[in-house]
Amino acid sequence: MDKSIKVVKSAQPVVRVKLTLAYDGSGFHGWQLQPDAPTVQGCIEKALERICSRPVRIHGSGRTDAGVHALGQVAHFDQPENKASVPWQKALNAILPDSIRVTRSLILGPDFHARFSAVSKTYCYNLWLEPDYVFPQRRNFVWKTGPLDLESMKKGSDLLVGKHDFRAFMNSGTEVRSTQRKVTGISFIQGLYPQELAVRITADGFLKQMARNIIGALVSVGRQKNHWTKLSRFLSDKTRPLTPATAPARGLCLEKVEYPEKYRAH
Amino acid sequence: MDKSIKVVKSAQPVVRVKLTLAYDGSGFHGWQLQPDAPTVQGCIEKALERICSRPVRIHGSGRTDAGVHALGQVAHFDQPENKASVPWQKALNAILPDSIRVTRSLILGPDFHARFSAVSKTYCYNLWLEPDYVFPQRRNFVWKTGPLDLESMKKGSDLLVGKHDFRAFMNSGTEVRSTQRKVTGISFIQGLYPQELAVRITADGFLKQMARNIIGALVSVGRQKNHWTKLSRFLSDKTRPLTPATAPARGLCLEKVEYPEKYRAH
Repeated sequence: MDKSIKVVKSAQPVVRVKLTLAYDGSGFHGWQLQPDAPTVQGCIEKALERICSRPVRIHGSGRTDAGVHALGQVAHFDQPENKASVPWQKALNAILPDSIRVTRSLILGPDFHARFSAVSKTYCYNLWLEPDYVFPQRRNFVWKTGPLDLESMKKGSDLLVGKHDFRAFMNSGTEVRSTQRKVTGISFIQGLYPQELAVRITADGFLKQMARNIIGALVSVGRQKNHWTKLSRFLSDKTRPLTPATAPARGLCLEKVEYPEKYRAH
Repeated sequence: MDKSIKVVKSAQPVVRVKLTLAYDGSGFHGWQLQPDAPTVQGCIEKALERICSRPVRIHGSGRTDAGVHALGQVAHFDQPENKASVPWQKALNAILPDSIRVTRSLILGPDFHARFSAVSKTYCYNLWLEPDYVFPQRRNFVWKTGPLDLESMKKGSDLLVGKHDFRAFMNSGTEVRSTQRKVTGISFIQGLYPQELAVRITADGFLKQMARNIIGALVSVGRQKNHWTKLSRFLSDKTRPLTPATAPARGLCLEKVEYPEKYRAH
């Protein structure tokens, strides 16, 4: 399926380690490696280098922006031949800062790729509905919007579910072959505290900042700045400047990346 | 009821402001004012001094230890006569660091006292049952105990409910008239995440570190280091050194302080 992976010439078959990761994104400049700023990828590669005594590249299911959190990000790396006995979850958690945790590790073959094997992703966005304060315990994990018209948001979200060109919900900066994505579900659920509303979005893939742009648009509906029928208009207009502003990073969390059955733990 | 409050000689009756407070205790050296360390009381008094242009003393319902959190701590202060029009919640939240929030302010008379008028307090303690990791989002708010025998903990907790001498559950350092307290309820509920178990304890008052010592003892039962019937023994022995170690501060949160009807908002 994925032709871009280099075939490693080796006496032994490549062993690929799938890591499931949770992180508090508050202190990181996002997932992707940067030379002079702490990033999640950078921290994990540093920990792997300590264990393996040589650089090890990891591949995430996708980048998360600065300030975005994860409960179920997935990444993979190829296990060095002389490190077959390392208990990866335990070994990495012993070295990583406690703002990043490996919640599971799984040994797979070279056909698995954290990004290209993924079939769907689920993001959860936390909105704080109480206008006068945010619990300090939640200040890095919610967007304080104040009260929202939930019924209109639900009606609007129904217009986004399905296969659409989400160009109007994509921020520029990354080249993509297609801006078509299939959103399989948007659900509104009680958040961790009664003052919270969580919005869960599942899609076969997300364009750059698409989750935060969908939330920004839904909140504009919830605040009655846009009628819910306007969401169809945003989709068909296909131009970002007409769509409401991107929601703040801190409310977003990558909850889950789904893979075909054969790449899951049993 | 409270004879210790000084009668303030003034042309106008004393106006006492009741504040309900939430804080993330991670960055504070506890509630109580200290000369050279950031404390919750210190932060609030500094904010009040900025608003009132003179020192204002606040009185909490009780001290919380370094690292302990609150969702419903209560404190009061006497409103300076020339500050009758200040919207306290808004004014304080504009100045306070976002690790402390005023969730409510209420104007009362001089008979109210945050500490002496309180009739009960509820603490919540968060236990993390998954042995291999803690979600980074929860690292400052839970104690990772691993799996626990919940049934034994429930049986043990029943022995602590009621009016008892809790001397064995009190750390030294504060003089008290009586070490008798009435625990009106201990309940075990699902925590914020499925990996969490929350223990909620309500009592007419708590001795120094009593909540954390009760949790320490209950966890020793949950880990099968002590049989649940041992909790009666700890109570009757009345000596701290025989009781299991104090649970870490970070798992504890002061959820609610209850007052008679006349001191509540309507």
